[in-house]
Amino acid sequence: MLYEINEKAIRLENQGKKIIRLNLGDPDLATPNEIIEAAYASMKAGKTKYSSSYGESKLREKLAELHGVKAENVVITPGSKWGVFATMYLMLKSGGNVIIPTPYWTAYDLIAKSLGAQTKLLRTEMEDGWKVNLDKLENLIDKNTKMIILNNPNNPTSKVMDAETLDGIVELANRKGVTILSDEVYGTISFVKTKSILEYNGDHKHILTTGFSKTFSMTGWRVGYIIANKLLIDNITKLNQITINNVPVFIQEAALKGLELQKPLAAKIKEEYEVRAKIASSTLSKGGFLFTKPEAPFYVFPKRAGLDSEKFTLSLLDKGVAVAPGTAFGDYREHFRISLTAPREEIKIALEKIGEAVG
Amino acid sequence: MLYEINEKAIRLENQGKKIIRLNLGDPDLATPNEIIEAAYASMKAGKTKYSSSYGESKLREKLAELHGVKAENVVITPGSKWGVFATMYLMLKSGGNVIIPTPYWTAYDLIAKSLGAQTKLLRTEMEDGWKVNLDKLENLIDKNTKMIILNNPNNPTSKVMDAETLDGIVELANRKGVTILSDEVYGTISFVKTKSILEYNGDHKHILTTGFSKTFSMTGWRVGYIIANKLLIDNITKLNQITINNVPVFIQEAALKGLELQKPLAAKIKEEYEVRAKIASSTLSKGGFLFTKPEAPFYVFPKRAGLDSEKFTLSLLDKGVAVAPGTAFGDYREHFRISLTAPREEIKIALEKIGEAVG
Repeated sequence: MLYEINEKAIRLENQGKKIIRLNLGDPDLATPNEIIEAAYASMKAGKTKYSSSYGESKLREKLAELHGVKAENVVITPGSKWGVFATMYLMLKSGGNVIIPTPYWTAYDLIAKSLGAQTKLLRTEMEDGWKVNLDKLENLIDKNTKMIILNNPNNPTSKVMDAETLDGIVELANRKGVTILSDEVYGTISFVKTKSILEYNGDHKHILTTGFSKTFSMTGWRVGYIIANKLLIDNITKLNQITINNVPVFIQEAALKGLELQKPLAAKIKEEYEVRAKIASSTLSKGGFLFTKPEAPFYVFPKRAGLDSEKFTLSLLDKGVAVAPGTAFGDYREHFRISLTAPREEIKIALEKIGEAVG
Repeated sequence: MLYEINEKAIRLENQGKKIIRLNLGDPDLATPNEIIEAAYASMKAGKTKYSSSYGESKLREKLAELHGVKAENVVITPGSKWGVFATMYLMLKSGGNVIIPTPYWTAYDLIAKSLGAQTKLLRTEMEDGWKVNLDKLENLIDKNTKMIILNNPNNPTSKVMDAETLDGIVELANRKGVTILSDEVYGTISFVKTKSILEYNGDHKHILTTGFSKTFSMTGWRVGYIIANKLLIDNITKLNQITINNVPVFIQEAALKGLELQKPLAAKIKEEYEVRAKIASSTLSKGGFLFTKPEAPFYVFPKRAGLDSEKFTLSLLDKGVAVAPGTAFGDYREHFRISLTAPREEIKIALEKIGEAVG
């Protein structure tokens, strides 16, 4: 349904219609020029050849330093999604099940299905502040459970997991011998303090996947990384060798330049998205929508009792606004996801049309 | 062993030793400047966002035109290796076996093993001009055979399959209902006329994988494509959606620029590699090595009776020359592979050292 909406939006645009695109997590901010210039300089310097399937040493070392791990615990991936796929491919191909709290990013479930792995969905509710219930989680774990996937901050809710709940999940996972894959692609730019899985990870039992897309407006560049124990990093590298081979070196050097700019860039993105989130929250509240306050870019996941979000998003698209139905993130028909990935003025117009559309 | 040699070569280089690198298929020619400038212009124009998992329409249409197919039969991949992996992932994940003539590119076998698929190796011999024996092929096919992988021109032999043998393989595959995956990454630059699988493929039963790496000296850019029936293209696109998402648009626009330069570039590469192949052939013949004449860049695959190529390549490396042992391409211990991916003068020096090393 996510892809259907997107394809219809593209079709309408091709017909000359103006669509305000709030359906993807693709920031409207351009990739900073310094990053583009770094890529160009690198290409000109001949960094256009096959390279290591681990990634470039300089980038791995810099990331290791930032995260307080060793370079041997880092592998560069073509986007954070590849990090999720590769990890699930290696850990689930001999069978087993994976627990995913919902609402979730669609890709987790699609990857598991593609690999023939069983998924166990753990429903969370807006009314509980999207908290994972530890008893329910414990009940879902069985002897075939290989992995729990956390997305913190969460897409689509932009909710950051509270420290106490995360403590509990890690304690439970350790006790049961289950690996946590923590996708923290929104972590660097969250509005509130966000505890990373790495804070529990002296022994590298658990896995971090993340990327450069969101912090550096580099979505289309496809560059991310995994932090994990050396054995998994080595195995992911072997998988890279038979699949993508390497992330282009000039892209890795551009990402390295990005890291130098991280503080001012992250501050700028946070500031802009906090303003957008306030605009959206205020209008949605007035319109009678229910939602939890966004604690990170880029999403709001409002609810309205009785809404059929699939019908709603399709009809809204005809009015020139693309958003994603709640059903794309699990069984959340009364919700829809707004990506605040457009200039403030467009967001205001879109919110007015949303208000009109629900009547 | 291929990776071991490469890692040892890098280690020696890091120690300050000069190594003549004839162990990889990575051309020493730089990516043409026009291609780099096209990538830069594209980045500057903001082509840095998420994009279609099918690939860019313009590039797909251009490739369709070049190959006489429809754009719906083309999907862009991050390198031709991804094309091979993705196809095998989809066709073999529910089991079955794949037939691979040897000597082969290691990746085919590693991919099959990673997917848990059985491989059936079909040995060919230098003494037979590396011809596939059709009776032996027919005997290998059983009810679980899903795929035959051809690599034409072949790595490591640089042999082009003769039309009669290819006719026979296709007839057999069609009769038995087995799909051919034809990796033709060296096809555009072969020295002799090379029949493509597409010449048999009005109904798109079979699959072409190829890339821009070899023709355009773009190995590190990771861009290739698959030509196949629409259903497989759609399914590969779905796999792209949950893995690599998209090849960066600026890389696809650079590849499109490359296609405009194809004729002069391919001519230049052919010319240079034919000269290198002649230099190598003449020296190797004088040195008493046996081999078939290279019909494409980049390789020669000489044999010497009694040679243990693993020991030989390791000791040659200590003399400053990196080549690949025959055992990396199947059960060919008396062979080794020389990549002619260095300037002529270096190739001459390397060949002298090879002559000395075998004594």
